Amino acid sequence: MNRIKVGILGATGMVGQQYVSLLQNHPWFEVSYLAASPNSAGKTYAEAVSGRWHMRDDIPRALKDLPVQDANQPERAAGKCKFVFSALEMNKQAILDLEEAYAAIDIPVVSNASANRSTADVPMLIPEINHQHIEIIPEQQKSRGWKKGFIVVKPNCSLQSYMTPIYALIAAGFPVRRLIISTMQAVSGAGYPGVPSLDMLDNLVPFIGGEEEKSENEPLKIMGKVSGNKIINDQTIKISAHCNRVGVIDGHTACVSLEFAEKKPDLDQIVSIWHDFKSLPQEMQLPFAPAQPIIYRHEPNRPQPRKDRDADKGMAVSVGRLRPCQVFDVRFVGLSHNTIRGAAGGGILNAELLKVKGLFDF
Amino acid sequence: MNRIKVGILGATGMVGQQYVSLLQNHPWFEVSYLAASPNSAGKTYAEAVSGRWHMRDDIPRALKDLPVQDANQPERAAGKCKFVFSALEMNKQAILDLEEAYAAIDIPVVSNASANRSTADVPMLIPEINHQHIEIIPEQQKSRGWKKGFIVVKPNCSLQSYMTPIYALIAAGFPVRRLIISTMQAVSGAGYPGVPSLDMLDNLVPFIGGEEEKSENEPLKIMGKVSGNKIINDQTIKISAHCNRVGVIDGHTACVSLEFAEKKPDLDQIVSIWHDFKSLPQEMQLPFAPAQPIIYRHEPNRPQPRKDRDADKGMAVSVGRLRPCQVFDVRFVGLSHNTIRGAAGGGILNAELLKVKGLFDF
Amino acid sequence: MNRIKVGILGATGMVGQQYVSLLQNHPWFEVSYLAASPNSAGKTYAEAVSGRWHMRDDIPRALKDLPVQDANQPERAAGKCKFVFSALEMNKQAILDLEEAYAAIDIPVVSNASANRSTADVPMLIPEINHQHIEIIPEQQKSRGWKKGFIVVKPNCSLQSYMTPIYALIAAGFPVRRLIISTMQAVSGAGYPGVPSLDMLDNLVPFIGGEEEKSENEPLKIMGKVSGNKIINDQTIKISAHCNRVGVIDGHTACVSLEFAEKKPDLDQIVSIWHDFKSLPQEMQLPFAPAQPIIYRHEPNRPQPRKDRDADKGMAVSVGRLRPCQVFDVRFVGLSHNTIRGAAGGGILNAELLKVKGLFDF
Amino acid sequence: MNRIKVGILGATGMVGQQYVSLLQNHPWFEVSYLAASPNSAGKTYAEAVSGRWHMRDDIPRALKDLPVQDANQPERAAGKCKFVFSALEMNKQAILDLEEAYAAIDIPVVSNASANRSTADVPMLIPEINHQHIEIIPEQQKSRGWKKGFIVVKPNCSLQSYMTPIYALIAAGFPVRRLIISTMQAVSGAGYPGVPSLDMLDNLVPFIGGEEEKSENEPLKIMGKVSGNKIINDQTIKISAHCNRVGVIDGHTACVSLEFAEKKPDLDQIVSIWHDFKSLPQEMQLPFAPAQPIIYRHEPNRPQPRKDRDADKGMAVSVGRLRPCQVFDVRFVGLSHNTIRGAAGGGILNAELLKVKGLFDF
Repeated sequence: MNRIKVGILGATGMVGQQYVSLLQNHPWFEVSYLAASPNSAGKTYAEAVSGRWHMRDDIPRALKDLPVQDANQPERAAGKCKFVFSALEMNKQAILDLEEAYAAIDIPVVSNASANRSTADVPMLIPEINHQHIEIIPEQQKSRGWKKGFIVVKPNCSLQSYMTPIYALIAAGFPVRRLIISTMQAVSGAGYPGVPSLDMLDNLVPFIGGEEEKSENEPLKIMGKVSGNKIINDQTIKISAHCNRVGVIDGHTACVSLEFAEKKPDLDQIVSIWHDFKSLPQEMQLPFAPAQPIIYRHEPNRPQPRKDRDADKGMAVSVGRLRPCQVFDVRFVGLSHNTIRGAAGGGILNAELLKVKGLFDF
Repeated sequence: MNRIKVGILGATGMVGQQYVSLLQNHPWFEVSYLAASPNSAGKTYAEAVSGRWHMRDDIPRALKDLPVQDANQPERAAGKCKFVFSALEMNKQAILDLEEAYAAIDIPVVSNASANRSTADVPMLIPEINHQHIEIIPEQQKSRGWKKGFIVVKPNCSLQSYMTPIYALIAAGFPVRRLIISTMQAVSGAGYPGVPSLDMLDNLVPFIGGEEEKSENEPLKIMGKVSGNKIINDQTIKISAHCNRVGVIDGHTACVSLEFAEKKPDLDQIVSIWHDFKSLPQEMQLPFAPAQPIIYRHEPNRPQPRKDRDADKGMAVSVGRLRPCQVFDVRFVGLSHNTIRGAAGGGILNAELLKVKGLFDF
Repeated sequence: MNRIKVGILGATGMVGQQYVSLLQNHPWFEVSYLAASPNSAGKTYAEAVSGRWHMRDDIPRALKDLPVQDANQPERAAGKCKFVFSALEMNKQAILDLEEAYAAIDIPVVSNASANRSTADVPMLIPEINHQHIEIIPEQQKSRGWKKGFIVVKPNCSLQSYMTPIYALIAAGFPVRRLIISTMQAVSGAGYPGVPSLDMLDNLVPFIGGEEEKSENEPLKIMGKVSGNKIINDQTIKISAHCNRVGVIDGHTACVSLEFAEKKPDLDQIVSIWHDFKSLPQEMQLPFAPAQPIIYRHEPNRPQPRKDRDADKGMAVSVGRLRPCQVFDVRFVGLSHNTIRGAAGGGILNAELLKVKGLFDF
Repeated sequence: MNRIKVGILGATGMVGQQYVSLLQNHPWFEVSYLAASPNSAGKTYAEAVSGRWHMRDDIPRALKDLPVQDANQPERAAGKCKFVFSALEMNKQAILDLEEAYAAIDIPVVSNASANRSTADVPMLIPEINHQHIEIIPEQQKSRGWKKGFIVVKPNCSLQSYMTPIYALIAAGFPVRRLIISTMQAVSGAGYPGVPSLDMLDNLVPFIGGEEEKSENEPLKIMGKVSGNKIINDQTIKISAHCNRVGVIDGHTACVSLEFAEKKPDLDQIVSIWHDFKSLPQEMQLPFAPAQPIIYRHEPNRPQPRKDRDADKGMAVSVGRLRPCQVFDVRFVGLSHNTIRGAAGGGILNAELLKVKGLFDF
């Protein structure tokens, strides 16, 4: 099979590098186009990331000499790739404008950026949860006047450690009413240079700008319903999130207290629901889909970031410490890899979903 | 004024060392007796802690050559000190027996150990909150047949970062109904060698054995009422605690979501209540009492362990990030120094309270 | 090809677990026998390591239910495996006795333990450097009266970050006279629980018991010559080692100042020598041999533990910062993975060498 | 006594804050003037450092409302302070120009910046070692045409952990010929935000730009001789320095191998020399002088940054692990507090020396 040619916008940043690294040897996609800010444009990729390549593997040989293009010139991508992953790091309006400009010239955008997350006709996908939200894409195209282009986004990395386990319970017939969540988030989430070491050695910072708002609002859209050319947010779940930065490289951990709306499963039922949970990505055997999206750890002191973040190549959520809550119904700890499942790996899974659903068949 | 002679049981452990260190130059108390396990007995204090002295200051000159006694022989302390601080590290029954043995021979015990925390006639003191619980001491003495001896304890270190702020609200007329708390606790809380570095570098552990139970139950006794020879636990507050160990040396941080039972103060009122809060230790100007027990930090990213744990010599609680909770009423972050306020410093403040209340006047 | 059955002594410790983990899917060797201390004996492997499994991958499915044997009973291994990897953690005499006991009953021992490193007829192998030392094995067998059994050892983990680069220079015709080395060693080298986090957070410890002596003496044997039934240590190189423990999980880093004995290559020559260095393990394509044993990093701030320790699956040495020394001739920084190249991976490479040399053909 | 009014240039940076913090309650000096970059100018000091105050103590009350001046306008300082501490962070030429401009208008400059360290008539002071270098000041003033102004500097922070111990040996009659040094330096040396946490968690960086050159060259000037209007560098000592950044907040550690030029003291002699070493700052009882400039730790695993950096309020050097070197004569570990002794505290000690020597008597 010929692989689909893909581009990466913001290819020199941390998330862009993660895309480059994870897409090596991808069975369906082949990176053929790299774009970044004007001052990287014209350099080879190796030159552009020189001194700031942060991946464990070296730069893929095939991309070292690829010239980096100016991401602000969408027309340059035409004919060079079928769609782009957006890992743009610019102000919100600039990203909105640029992602639309790519879509407008028939280049779909699979975005990591937060700019379009609250756009009503842009689906925010966790494929195991709301793959059906892609049905809004034709509406999005129609109302924007786009033919083949479109935009999809993925949610914030911090949600990933608990949204799939919570969705699994809802999907099994146990609606959830209230959640109080406290996260301990890894420094890689802030990019490079990101968090100063003076803040993380013998310390933690109980604040991450904008993160609590995203953690509280984005789940409502993910759990929402497509209605015409809009996604209507869920109105039934209430979430309070405390977001903390801790001295961990990769892997966001969340302590969750959960109140059910109606029926309350017992603890064994919950473990079974999580253990058995599968969704479309698993059924369709998408290359980046974890075999088991939710892994329950029975050890009393797991999950832990360094030990569990790489579960199923960083795409599975690890859950543990399920126990009764003294205030709500149950509580547990969730963990996922913030730069794989929570960023580039999640974007790739989104693209795989779009591919099997025919959105790139043009 | 002649200083009161005091002993330290478990003087060679981490908390014992902290007592030794903090009591240097204490205006009222003078360490005159050091006791530890039989295999330290007979050595000088300097020999006994050789290679495992963890305090920042060197061993106080006056204690270096003091011979360490066997803590299992209470009678040896008779005449050598008026009361003892207990930092014993033994199994629960052994501590129960030993603390009673000291009390029985007229040596009051001001304890850091958890063994007697659930004993119904033993007050568990945070002097700013429940100093009046010492009124149970005569009952304790009567029912045990002790004349001058008695036992008081302090609660677990993890509570200290939020119990005083919560009590201040209750005392101001705003009863609290429910609390969901997530802590990020320092490694010094586990003593030495304590937590392996393999668990704390690029990692955290979302579990501390027994800590959640203590965090949920001990506040109920602290908020309880003395009734005859018992302290009756508070029945009105419900607490759920998630306790995590993180790579911080000193300073426990807590993320708190709080629901009021009746009236709800607004955010400005809460900050005022905290700012103005004072209690008996402040009024009586106890030497270890922080001038301001609760310090509100207005910066968006405070309190932080390394920056705030030493507030007022480690005896004040720092609070910040007060904001509405999406699920309960308000949420905030609290922080206190676990080995000072939460351990030896707290014990010393308890002793100071007992002293001004005349409990050592014999 | 049928895989050779191998045993692991000390299978439940950190190095033992590393062997178990690295030998999954090994093309030549198959773990068939696990032995540990008497109190693990009788349990399944999964039970024996429960709560203290530290590898990133889960316990290999095939070994979970394998019963652990008592390592003190060598006769139990007879017929169950052709040779054993020794990762015993006991006192020196006990290890000496036990490794000899296995060899005496025709079970060769490929050891990680330090006990036999100074035994004159036991080769201490880094296959890229002194593979020819295995020629002493027949002498060892003869003088001990062993028929098929024998003992080989690997050197201390700290050497690996600089010995191969130094040997490459010597082999290229540039003898070395003096070395002053300062290491910054990872905590995994001390096992689990190992180094307390109170020693590694915002701190380092400039001392590791016994490590400097090993670092200074073991290279002399590695560079020595087989003479009859003895390995005669090299007499020409002088080494001074400062060994430090730092807050890094895996990867030992060494700062090396080097004085040549005679001719002095220029810096470009040295980089070429390192780049081109290959030895028997590469020529024979041993499965665990790194394709390029020495990787020179041209970036100004490399090698770094987290970025370079996994080079070629943790079996290559990364070198960088080659520059003139103001006191000796040149200086550089070397780095290798202490629990892979420096422990179990190194042991496996030794066994692969022995296999292709026919030492297991019986 | 009236305190001398002093200014701080670069008062809002990390070193500037350290000056502000350390000079609280100084018996001789009183901060009366704060200057920084133009975009801080006009703000109160509290406003100017808002959100980036990194000291443990809060901003001194007396300085909170002091308006910050533009450091580029030296004339504004005239009459406001007798001399200035320079903690300027600009390019080298700008600092050279500006420090001269202050000196030219009769405002002496006690500088932390590196710009003037290689200026031949500017003394680079460690008062315990080369206090007599201040005799060049009249020459400096004469050749520059300055009347009362002058410039002195302090050396790089990394030297301080070993230069005083080495000087003590030389002063005792044991000249030193060669030194190979490897440092492990704290992140506070790089200011804030400084070193990214992604570089320091589970990692170290074996490179600090410019640091090795400073560590090798600056000691030669410190050990040099004043000759007319020049300081002639020492020609007899050779130094090779490997500089590493490690995940420690404060405290630079150095592993030193040392070769004597002629006579070789034995180890006991060296410990005595260090223990007994005193110099002018001790004799004159300068307020910031450590009572004992070199503290020898006899424990096998000291000095350690977290335990020893604060020795004598961060002004003493801690030394340990003195032992024979296998290559040179002896080796040891030195440690000093890089932001106190190595920065602001060292600058204050320099000013105290100048004060008692009458350089501010005008």
